[in-house]
Amino acid sequence: MIFSNKTKKTGDLKMGKQVIVKVPASTANLGPGFDVLGMALNLYNTVVLEEMESDCQIIEVKGEGESLLPRDSSNLAARAVSSLLYSAGYSDHGFKLCLENQIPLASGLGSSAAAIVGGLVAANALAESPFSDQDILQMAVEIEGHPDNVAAALLGGVVVVIKDEESCIYSRLIPREGLGITAVIPDFSISTAEARSVLPEYVPLQDAVYNLGRIALLVTALREGDWDLLRVALHDRLHQPYRCQLVPGLADVFAAALESGAYGAFLSGAGPTVVALTPPDCDAGRAIADVFQSKNITARVLQLEPCLTGSYIL
Amino acid sequence: MIFSNKTKKTGDLKMGKQVIVKVPASTANLGPGFDVLGMALNLYNTVVLEEMESDCQIIEVKGEGESLLPRDSSNLAARAVSSLLYSAGYSDHGFKLCLENQIPLASGLGSSAAAIVGGLVAANALAESPFSDQDILQMAVEIEGHPDNVAAALLGGVVVVIKDEESCIYSRLIPREGLGITAVIPDFSISTAEARSVLPEYVPLQDAVYNLGRIALLVTALREGDWDLLRVALHDRLHQPYRCQLVPGLADVFAAALESGAYGAFLSGAGPTVVALTPPDCDAGRAIADVFQSKNITARVLQLEPCLTGSYIL
Repeated sequence: MIFSNKTKKTGDLKMGKQVIVKVPASTANLGPGFDVLGMALNLYNTVVLEEMESDCQIIEVKGEGESLLPRDSSNLAARAVSSLLYSAGYSDHGFKLCLENQIPLASGLGSSAAAIVGGLVAANALAESPFSDQDILQMAVEIEGHPDNVAAALLGGVVVVIKDEESCIYSRLIPREGLGITAVIPDFSISTAEARSVLPEYVPLQDAVYNLGRIALLVTALREGDWDLLRVALHDRLHQPYRCQLVPGLADVFAAALESGAYGAFLSGAGPTVVALTPPDCDAGRAIADVFQSKNITARVLQLEPCLTGSYIL
Repeated sequence: MIFSNKTKKTGDLKMGKQVIVKVPASTANLGPGFDVLGMALNLYNTVVLEEMESDCQIIEVKGEGESLLPRDSSNLAARAVSSLLYSAGYSDHGFKLCLENQIPLASGLGSSAAAIVGGLVAANALAESPFSDQDILQMAVEIEGHPDNVAAALLGGVVVVIKDEESCIYSRLIPREGLGITAVIPDFSISTAEARSVLPEYVPLQDAVYNLGRIALLVTALREGDWDLLRVALHDRLHQPYRCQLVPGLADVFAAALESGAYGAFLSGAGPTVVALTPPDCDAGRAIADVFQSKNITARVLQLEPCLTGSYIL
């Protein structure tokens, strides 16, 4: 726990103070950028955090996960709140946490990253901001394990992020305007553990080189708005070929996206959501959903945009 | 031979016309960018190409490689000239080719790429430019086998380049001003074949991810002039760990470069040249050369800059 060396405070939080944080969904990997690239999207969870006089925790959940998410201290957002308050020296304070979720669970759109980041940012605001974005990123990665979704959810835009020994190092870029982003969310979930279990420990060096070139082109394409470059820059050989067994019809989905005019499509994070990057007015969503439908899988289509702000306090 | 569908011309080249081309050295890989990243440097070979009335080939070499390079049709620059003239429909024309070389051979500074690109660009000019840069890049890759050095030597700046099926796709960026580039050239050579033979066929997926994040940061660092980012963005786990056995003292060389104040250092291409990226007025060159000296290896130090123009006709 890298923040445990803080002096414990004896003062109060602002009693009765309420903090409202909006935290975006995120798509990780973006094809070739396995485990290092994330983009925030304009689909939000709202976290309402309020200090309680007693030391109890009250947790409410509305929207996505309403019937599934725990209401006790195992709730991920609550864990994040407790962790930050502890690090800030307010370990004995209770709180009321209301989660209003738009981000579907276990779908590859960063719902757990949003829960963690939302909890941390709200608690930091309640504690009068003792921690920087960099601190919060480190805390979020400690809880989440990997940095791509949490960095995007916290910082917004497109984020390249690595772990260098214990530190997270990131670079944020704003994609040019004019890119269509379609997320198609099939009606089943894949756990991150399951999605990781199908990956090999070793990969062909040539496949690594394949992705190296494409991620470098992808970063340039997004920054410069060189959308045609996306037609090759979204290709991947490091994770999707192994994960296609988890998503029925994935190869057909990618083909349908291209046929509908998309620059390309990829598994969002560990899936099963598929994201297509497209010209404006491209109906890749319907084309992809039709393929899922042909496999008897219902899918929701969302037309999204990059969220450039990251998490913010209302 | 993808250009062999050209109609053979019966006309003459401009008899007696002389073309002079300057073609830059290049450093490939730049740490994490194995096989996909190249940067042109302001160290040049000069190619003087002249049409001959007879169908014979006269080849002269001065400077680097003067005592080693062949003067017959096996000369790489001559092969490039012949290949382009053939594709342009001038297969029966002789030429005189004078090579004035500054780029040391088999040192990792792109001497063979420069020979190929220099021959192609000169011959294309002599034939009144039937081919585009993209065509010439394709021809150069057919001869050289991999695209990173040839793309940098042809186009200048920093180039990300991939082969997508048979086509080369590239993106060029201009590094911000203010970056010191020191090349230290030890007095021994490594063949590309030898440098490739020590690489494994499979690598840990985690090492691939390691490089993915760093190449994405590196592209950003060079474009934005975010030099501090270079301290992590130049790290590599895909080729240098395997090649260090070919360069005595390489780990000490990298350590000495950092200690002297460099942002980082890497094997240039397949080595043995080491390139350090540094703040201005950093004497990484001496620090690196001293380590080589301690292994009884003489080394030359060159202070260089990026070549932004690529190959050009005088």
